[in-house]
Amino acid sequence: MCRWLGYVGSPIEPRELLYDPERSLIEQSRRHAPNMPVPNGDGFGLGWYGRRDVPALFHSASPAWGDRNLRELSGEIASSLFLAHVRAATGTPVQETNCHPFGLGRWLFVHNGYIAGYDRLRRDMMLAVRPDLFSSVQGTTDSEVMFYLAMTFGLPDDPIAGLERMAGFVESLGAAAGIAEPLQMTVGVTDGERLYAARYASGPEVNTLYYSADVESLRKLYPEEERFAHFSAEARVVVSEPLVELPGLWHGISAGSAIVVGKGGVEQLPFVPRPPR
Amino acid sequence: MCRWLGYVGSPIEPRELLYDPERSLIEQSRRHAPNMPVPNGDGFGLGWYGRRDVPALFHSASPAWGDRNLRELSGEIASSLFLAHVRAATGTPVQETNCHPFGLGRWLFVHNGYIAGYDRLRRDMMLAVRPDLFSSVQGTTDSEVMFYLAMTFGLPDDPIAGLERMAGFVESLGAAAGIAEPLQMTVGVTDGERLYAARYASGPEVNTLYYSADVESLRKLYPEEERFAHFSAEARVVVSEPLVELPGLWHGISAGSAIVVGKGGVEQLPFVPRPPR
Amino acid sequence: MCRWLGYVGSPIEPRELLYDPERSLIEQSRRHAPNMPVPNGDGFGLGWYGRRDVPALFHSASPAWGDRNLRELSGEIASSLFLAHVRAATGTPVQETNCHPFGLGRWLFVHNGYIAGYDRLRRDMMLAVRPDLFSSVQGTTDSEVMFYLAMTFGLPDDPIAGLERMAGFVESLGAAAGIAEPLQMTVGVTDGERLYAARYASGPEVNTLYYSADVESLRKLYPEEERFAHFSAEARVVVSEPLVELPGLWHGISAGSAIVVGKGGVEQLPFVPRPPR
Amino acid sequence: MCRWLGYVGSPIEPRELLYDPERSLIEQSRRHAPNMPVPNGDGFGLGWYGRRDVPALFHSASPAWGDRNLRELSGEIASSLFLAHVRAATGTPVQETNCHPFGLGRWLFVHNGYIAGYDRLRRDMMLAVRPDLFSSVQGTTDSEVMFYLAMTFGLPDDPIAGLERMAGFVESLGAAAGIAEPLQMTVGVTDGERLYAARYASGPEVNTLYYSADVESLRKLYPEEERFAHFSAEARVVVSEPLVELPGLWHGISAGSAIVVGKGGVEQLPFVPRPPR
Repeated sequence: MCRWLGYVGSPIEPRELLYDPERSLIEQSRRHAPNMPVPNGDGFGLGWYGRRDVPALFHSASPAWGDRNLRELSGEIASSLFLAHVRAATGTPVQETNCHPFGLGRWLFVHNGYIAGYDRLRRDMMLAVRPDLFSSVQGTTDSEVMFYLAMTFGLPDDPIAGLERMAGFVESLGAAAGIAEPLQMTVGVTDGERLYAARYASGPEVNTLYYSADVESLRKLYPEEERFAHFSAEARVVVSEPLVELPGLWHGISAGSAIVVGKGGVEQLPFVPRPPR
Repeated sequence: MCRWLGYVGSPIEPRELLYDPERSLIEQSRRHAPNMPVPNGDGFGLGWYGRRDVPALFHSASPAWGDRNLRELSGEIASSLFLAHVRAATGTPVQETNCHPFGLGRWLFVHNGYIAGYDRLRRDMMLAVRPDLFSSVQGTTDSEVMFYLAMTFGLPDDPIAGLERMAGFVESLGAAAGIAEPLQMTVGVTDGERLYAARYASGPEVNTLYYSADVESLRKLYPEEERFAHFSAEARVVVSEPLVELPGLWHGISAGSAIVVGKGGVEQLPFVPRPPR
Repeated sequence: MCRWLGYVGSPIEPRELLYDPERSLIEQSRRHAPNMPVPNGDGFGLGWYGRRDVPALFHSASPAWGDRNLRELSGEIASSLFLAHVRAATGTPVQETNCHPFGLGRWLFVHNGYIAGYDRLRRDMMLAVRPDLFSSVQGTTDSEVMFYLAMTFGLPDDPIAGLERMAGFVESLGAAAGIAEPLQMTVGVTDGERLYAARYASGPEVNTLYYSADVESLRKLYPEEERFAHFSAEARVVVSEPLVELPGLWHGISAGSAIVVGKGGVEQLPFVPRPPR
Repeated sequence: MCRWLGYVGSPIEPRELLYDPERSLIEQSRRHAPNMPVPNGDGFGLGWYGRRDVPALFHSASPAWGDRNLRELSGEIASSLFLAHVRAATGTPVQETNCHPFGLGRWLFVHNGYIAGYDRLRRDMMLAVRPDLFSSVQGTTDSEVMFYLAMTFGLPDDPIAGLERMAGFVESLGAAAGIAEPLQMTVGVTDGERLYAARYASGPEVNTLYYSADVESLRKLYPEEERFAHFSAEARVVVSEPLVELPGLWHGISAGSAIVVGKGGVEQLPFVPRPPR
């Protein structure tokens, strides 16, 4: 199980979420927790929107906790939208091209989960990728192909629908191959304007996903908490696991649901796999 | 242009060919030569047959010249058949899974060259790989897919024929895509018994390939050379570039030719691309 | 807290101890255990005696669990004496030169523990290293300087005495600097003939250390266990943490004790820090 | 021989100097040149002043030419003062802690050259480092110790004088050890306000160093050159080797000289080793 984090709001240093909280993403990469039998030490990535239209990407195949470049960078830049990911490999090699976020044009994508029986489904998944996108696939993970399938199935026009068609396609491939519960996922997708996140699995166990309460409410709940002071009113964090224990801070996203986070707040949607177009 | 080296003979330490000669493979990875505008610093690999039926593999994405593990290992093991490769990437990422030799079962494969327009041909090449081998492709190079295509086209039964069909397939794909000269290659293949090597390119410029003269002749030519003393009579080295300047030591392999090196000596064959089965 | 393992006996593949047991060293590098809040994912090393007088070394700064080279190598070589180590960094950088075992001539050294306040003691420790050995220090860990201090204080002539003087020196430096409990250690040292191991700490909490019972006794205890069948009678394993749960297999080494493991069996000694010569 | 580059002026993307010129620093890391027998492929570093008082650092032990993170980063950030370095190791390990620029507080340091007989001088050099700085030395290069010696000898108060005392100290150590020509160096030092650079060697051969002509003159010389258009009038580049061939663009710095580059232009000074205080 990987861990990931997305932020939308006024510009902050990624350090504030990656390193500073009690159970920061970097702590989550290393320190044992009840639902974490193995570390998320198989590489990491940070994708952020800064001075350009396209996001910048920083990937490394080393564990995040010991990486000096990430520590430097995440205290030096500021960004109003970024995605970070720490990886626990589920069979594919530990290398930069297998690190999330995956990027294509203006888009970034992160995934926590797996495709069961990926070895048997990989070829059919790759064949379904739009031919002109095929050579842009850089690594060998199930996650990256999920991204390219969603791009193939219309993600740029309707991100949630593109993801639902990808999920539907994986479900049907899995069914044809006799794989009982092929898909386990929480995913985050962004174009630099909005952050889309979905939580879904074929079976009853679904990886967790949370988003933070609005900052105004938090300030009322915790008037003494200085860390909420400089966050903008619309700032939101989406996480696979809470960064701190603070009642009222985290809203769980239901299994089979998606959210869209933007300047106007958080919109909730059902997430239902559907056949690809 | 990469550089590679294969050895067949009585067991020696790979160090004797990788480090000791004036223009050793490791020197070839780093030190400028007239036909080497950029270094072969994008990773390396050593595959050798030792205590098991299957070969052992050591890969690293770092430059060979600074790697302490390679230096240790190549002075500690001894092998009667090994392949070594230093890489100059031609567009695909610098990572271990893109390092030669590529291995599958008892087989090892190395390549020096490229497929022109690989970005446009990659999908069709991947689709032609035998479906049950598809998920064994670990990296993203043209070289690895060439290996899997040759495996698909019968390499285990007839290595040279498998390579010829692979070359024919690449030529026909290239022609269909309007690529004038799609293939540039010297390749080395082995099952631990024999070393097969071929030299071919679509156009008039073909990467070089040499094999060493038989040791008896060398001893007569250079009675004072101690380094030939402990090599067995049947020992042979195949190299993309000579390791030392010594008249009579290296036989050039003609473009459009292949050799088979085994206990019985060196057999020469034509190498002519042919349609895949 | 790092983890390490030493083996003395008839030649075996390191794989048999590094990968095969339920709680193998590689599993110990990754999978949570009650006394392991963070993984041992900051590099690893394997040192073994093979075809030469001096040991061979393989180091990597990547986590051991995902390293394909280690998996290949440890199934290909066989050795009658080897030391392996998985690292959890305690402040110094994650890099190959900080990975154990450290080697000097015929000697190898591994350490599990730390020197408290090493930042303040490092200079005095380095100054005490024999001047002609100073430039052989390759990394920046407390562990490596401990090894060089022991070498300075006579380790090659009397390994346990050299280690005791090193411990005494660190204790006295710590006392002078007002550090209450400066030293925490289990160490393993070998010259390729015998394996020396010691367990000591300044305070009451001391990292664990075990050695395996003699194989004859184990065969009587577990006549059905095939894994004991091919081990030689004198084979012994020294570990910082048991590799499997099997009553009677592991003897704890007392705090303030050392052992010497050789062809003649296991000798136990007190370990008492003493002033350096 | 390493290569390095410093920039002072209005904020630009490092990419403009690292990647865009015909003979950019990244090209210098890889492509053969008459005075470059081996590549500068043993790691690299970028240090820049951005949103904070202290510089940000990005280091990697991989060759610069294949590093995707450097390409991303150098096109995403903008800085009015940065130092970049590509390394050719001269004996010490290839690892991030041996990559330039070295940083301490507000200061950055890069070096091209070597100390002859460093193995024999290393201990005395380390002993001369101010004791409270000793534990901040992270790597094992001669270059880093040169930086710490200069810091010890007053660099923060008078950078050129600090460097001259460091050079004098190395000369005297070398003389005592019977090393004929111990020091070869061009160095760059900055506090984020000014860039100090010096060129010196014990013997007659001295590594080259250049700084760029003022932009106004260049605009008159090359009115059609668009690349000069957006550089600010005071912008200057200091390089170990020219980035493009353009008559009038590069001023050589004489051996035994130093320059100070700031908002007010370029000041030239003699550089004469002197005894440390």
